[in-house]
Amino acid sequence: MPERLGPLLPTAAARGVLRPAREALISGGLWGARRAVNAEVSVPRGYDRLAEAGNFHQLRLAAGTGTGEPLSLVPFIDSDVYKWLEAVAWQLGDPATGPDEAAALEERVAEVVHLLEDAQEENGYLQSHYQVVRPDRRWAELAWGHELYCAGHLIQAAVAHVRATGRTELLAIARRFADHVDEVFGVGEGKLDGICGHPEIETALVELYRVTDERRYLDLARYFVDRRGHGLLPAGRFGVEYWQDHAPVREADRVTGHAVRQLYLLAGAVDVYAESGDTELLAASERLWEEMVAARSYLTGGLGAHHTDESFGDPFEFPSERAYTETCAAIAAVHLSWRLLLATGRARYADHLERVLYNGFLSGVALDGEHYSYVNPLQVRDGHRPGAHTGDHGAYRVRWFVCACCPPNVMRLLASLPHAVAAGDAAGGLVLHQYTPGRFAAGALAVEVATEYPWQGDVHVRVLEAAEATLTLRLPHWVGAEGWRATVNGEPVEDGGPGAAVDDGWLRLTRAWRPGDTVALELTLAPRLTAPPSRADALRGCVAVERGPLVYCTEAADHPDGTALDDLRLDITRPLSDDAATTAPGVVIAVRATGSAEPPETDGWWAYPPAGTGREPGAETREFQLIPYHLWGHREQGAMRVWLPVLES
Amino acid sequence: MPERLGPLLPTAAARGVLRPAREALISGGLWGARRAVNAEVSVPRGYDRLAEAGNFHQLRLAAGTGTGEPLSLVPFIDSDVYKWLEAVAWQLGDPATGPDEAAALEERVAEVVHLLEDAQEENGYLQSHYQVVRPDRRWAELAWGHELYCAGHLIQAAVAHVRATGRTELLAIARRFADHVDEVFGVGEGKLDGICGHPEIETALVELYRVTDERRYLDLARYFVDRRGHGLLPAGRFGVEYWQDHAPVREADRVTGHAVRQLYLLAGAVDVYAESGDTELLAASERLWEEMVAARSYLTGGLGAHHTDESFGDPFEFPSERAYTETCAAIAAVHLSWRLLLATGRARYADHLERVLYNGFLSGVALDGEHYSYVNPLQVRDGHRPGAHTGDHGAYRVRWFVCACCPPNVMRLLASLPHAVAAGDAAGGLVLHQYTPGRFAAGALAVEVATEYPWQGDVHVRVLEAAEATLTLRLPHWVGAEGWRATVNGEPVEDGGPGAAVDDGWLRLTRAWRPGDTVALELTLAPRLTAPPSRADALRGCVAVERGPLVYCTEAADHPDGTALDDLRLDITRPLSDDAATTAPGVVIAVRATGSAEPPETDGWWAYPPAGTGREPGAETREFQLIPYHLWGHREQGAMRVWLPVLES
Repeated sequence: MPERLGPLLPTAAARGVLRPAREALISGGLWGARRAVNAEVSVPRGYDRLAEAGNFHQLRLAAGTGTGEPLSLVPFIDSDVYKWLEAVAWQLGDPATGPDEAAALEERVAEVVHLLEDAQEENGYLQSHYQVVRPDRRWAELAWGHELYCAGHLIQAAVAHVRATGRTELLAIARRFADHVDEVFGVGEGKLDGICGHPEIETALVELYRVTDERRYLDLARYFVDRRGHGLLPAGRFGVEYWQDHAPVREADRVTGHAVRQLYLLAGAVDVYAESGDTELLAASERLWEEMVAARSYLTGGLGAHHTDESFGDPFEFPSERAYTETCAAIAAVHLSWRLLLATGRARYADHLERVLYNGFLSGVALDGEHYSYVNPLQVRDGHRPGAHTGDHGAYRVRWFVCACCPPNVMRLLASLPHAVAAGDAAGGLVLHQYTPGRFAAGALAVEVATEYPWQGDVHVRVLEAAEATLTLRLPHWVGAEGWRATVNGEPVEDGGPGAAVDDGWLRLTRAWRPGDTVALELTLAPRLTAPPSRADALRGCVAVERGPLVYCTEAADHPDGTALDDLRLDITRPLSDDAATTAPGVVIAVRATGSAEPPETDGWWAYPPAGTGREPGAETREFQLIPYHLWGHREQGAMRVWLPVLES
Repeated sequence: MPERLGPLLPTAAARGVLRPAREALISGGLWGARRAVNAEVSVPRGYDRLAEAGNFHQLRLAAGTGTGEPLSLVPFIDSDVYKWLEAVAWQLGDPATGPDEAAALEERVAEVVHLLEDAQEENGYLQSHYQVVRPDRRWAELAWGHELYCAGHLIQAAVAHVRATGRTELLAIARRFADHVDEVFGVGEGKLDGICGHPEIETALVELYRVTDERRYLDLARYFVDRRGHGLLPAGRFGVEYWQDHAPVREADRVTGHAVRQLYLLAGAVDVYAESGDTELLAASERLWEEMVAARSYLTGGLGAHHTDESFGDPFEFPSERAYTETCAAIAAVHLSWRLLLATGRARYADHLERVLYNGFLSGVALDGEHYSYVNPLQVRDGHRPGAHTGDHGAYRVRWFVCACCPPNVMRLLASLPHAVAAGDAAGGLVLHQYTPGRFAAGALAVEVATEYPWQGDVHVRVLEAAEATLTLRLPHWVGAEGWRATVNGEPVEDGGPGAAVDDGWLRLTRAWRPGDTVALELTLAPRLTAPPSRADALRGCVAVERGPLVYCTEAADHPDGTALDDLRLDITRPLSDDAATTAPGVVIAVRATGSAEPPETDGWWAYPPAGTGREPGAETREFQLIPYHLWGHREQGAMRVWLPVLES
């Protein structure tokens, strides 16, 4: 039953070159390990964190069953509860969840659902902040109130709950709120013509349409997408571009403002396209995605260069140490690229999905599943003191945040991840666009995948359920034209050979498959050097080390001699080597490189010398280690660099 | 009468290698022109801006003579009035101010003084915000309340008023408030042991001691300096380092937090040293200044790399496009370097003063005297849209700000500038540490200076009042050992020659001067290339063009062919040339350089190519113009760059 699978399940009538897989099970490997920690640590303790932070307390106040002072820090704290509930729901739908765990989770859900039932008002309204702290300002502060944003997350949690468990009590609450929103908002007599300062409800309403078949939810989603860009919101502290209200999404020529807002909006636009066939929305989303990836995406896939308003910077503005690259923005980018992949079938969206997942997203949660980062910088400078800028979200991972949007967002993505790694095509074929051990099925095909990717490049696929159909494998953009080999049942595959075609990032294998058939794909994973775009001032003269889909970095802990990382120069004439020997937590394959790290000569009190009077660090070289970026910060709170200056020869 | 001169007038007993000049008059040139606009436009219209912004309205509410809603945006709006009053006072003390102008200014002062008299409470308390908006929270919100900060600016205005005009009615108000502060604050029974979140009162109280001879004001200043760093303030949104409360100034090992706060604090520490002989305070201030200039100062002398908390960045963190480099921080740096110059007599402080004045400070006000910048970035990227980040203070100059600290700060510095350009030594000699046309006197010497500096390098000094004494001239650090020549009465001067010595940045000419003697100093002003510190990632692979004390930049308006500035590459093998022909407002000498500016090749959807696959802009070169940085943004709101990538040969 596809209805029980995961988020993003288009209706049978929906547009889209690809569709979600009908079965997706991750059985181990890197994601398996991370998902196990998510299930065993993050999600259960998430309840404790929410309890400590007062989220349930506030809902009890709204329900009239609690006493004490209300919290007034941020208006959207209910959304943390909803994202956590969504994560719990996906865990309940996961075959790996044992009966005892499930019973414990069910108990938590029941408790919170009762709390929400008690807190919800007669007319369906539900947001503790405006029920408890500012009851007279309901629907009056759409710019910062996050009421529709919270409604969206409630709906997504409810959709997850019904898809994962078939249970409808949370869905009933969500529908009552959605119906109230539908009553209140719209164009015409007695309606409030308005949009939320933070997009989110758009994609949620499309999903609600999908589980209820109620067309008006889709219409309401479309209304919210289309009314944005007409100046319904005030300029506010950050200007109208902050919430993308400067231009309708159909007309916008670039991504602007708050990164998460922009990306959630585009995800909603693609969802509305999928169910309505409104191709203008798809075209706009593809156009803005291209502009964003070409000029505003960090190497890690991270998005958002500015701390002040968590916004995209100017084109090619990529400060490494002040990269904001919020964990939530990476998650939102996963939402968008996944949707564009299904809508268009273009491999670039799967390439981007992979880059974000392994780098800009995964850096957001520690191996222990209890520490999270809000921002994900690509550098911590020598001389940086943790906590010196508490107003900023710091560089290192912490347990929880006052504005706790990221941790439960991490939980729900990890809990639902299997559904985002494989897809089906229109002709009953299976598309493996991410490589992880597991079992995946679409159309008439089902396969088992064995691999140690991303550490090793071999991917073994064994056919379980067979038919005449196409098995499609992604050839990652970083592997290059010559960097892969494939066999079917031991026979080499060539582009243009029988039933084999390479097509813009895809290897398509079409034949009458039989159970037990095997496909072996070998991707070359040698460490490689990557250059920055020529307009990226902050990265000029540097290269980065990548291996497969992983961006690498080096930390102070990789230089036990006390080297200043800001003096490090990489000797690009010397080979990089894989190195399995490392004591860094979680690192299976490190990379070894050669470089120099002598301090610059200093001369006088002024730091800017006449050009050509060379104070560059010297050329005495030594070897040093790099580790995957997403694993940084597990040993100590020291300096770190992704981009390494090149040693001048 | 030195008591009528300017800010920063140590007592006769004070420590200090140098002392303020007894006469200082700027009679033309660049500063003369800017000061004329300040006098004729900025200061008179400042009154209008304050009236429009509601500053006087709020004071009338406090006085009980006004009606209407109070303003509640920032608590420190009174300080804008005080800084403007201080500027008016220095204008009143300026011999160039004509009687009609003076009468108009006197009328304004009388009006505001009456308003302040009415608003001041019986016990001396005076801050409209806490009188009108939050009367129950007086002295209860020291972290953000700015009450002592406002008191400091009131005192400085009063000191200026009495020094410039001999009138004491504003001084009486300031003393009443200072006495109240002295009653409230301190250690011991019934005293409030606390400090202001924003240093400022420290230096003001030392000045108040100087005009009143009341020792308790000096003691109170010392109390505020010494109680900081003991955790009296909360961590707040930005952490204790934000307001330098993490470590006593005597123990701090680096500048931290909010740049203006740090610099005002250090200026106060030097003032306390000067009057108390507490050498530990001087040593700490010198140490922190060195750390700051070596690792945290932009080429323009601008300070503060972070928008979020207007703070210093990490060492060598110099993002050009996000340089915060607040105009007020440049002004505060002038305060500090000037004080350290007087305290120590070291030329480096005068070098720094010059750099800040001509670049990081002067960019903060337009030629028209009606537009100001809050932030002073060193780059505006291609694709930047003005107003896209309204929450930030934008890159381009505007008329006024909600938080209007900078404009009246500019006014008071320009109004009092003559006093900061010359000094006297302990033996009755005169020190010319900045070069501008005018008349300067210290000890037994008085001179007239004629020069077109900074556009031309010739400085002509004619002795008016003579004695046997030393005339000291600064040899700027950028001129190098060979870049200057000097003559006395036409005879070449050599280091070690009769009565001539070069001493760590100073040329000291000692002789029995006679009226009519002439000294000619010739400084080489050829355009030159400057390199960034090797650890400055944001500037790697770039050079800057400087000429004399001026940092140059190039703007979109200098490239009428529509060149993308972010593709510009400077050919450093081709000579730079002076160029007098330019249509850019205010530019006397432009510089011409040669470079390329072809767009990079693009290839595919992902912006980060494999290293060595060269997408650098091509090498077809053309000439282009650079103008002084402080004059940028007068032609259009386009792209701008100080640091130019080097064309790879």
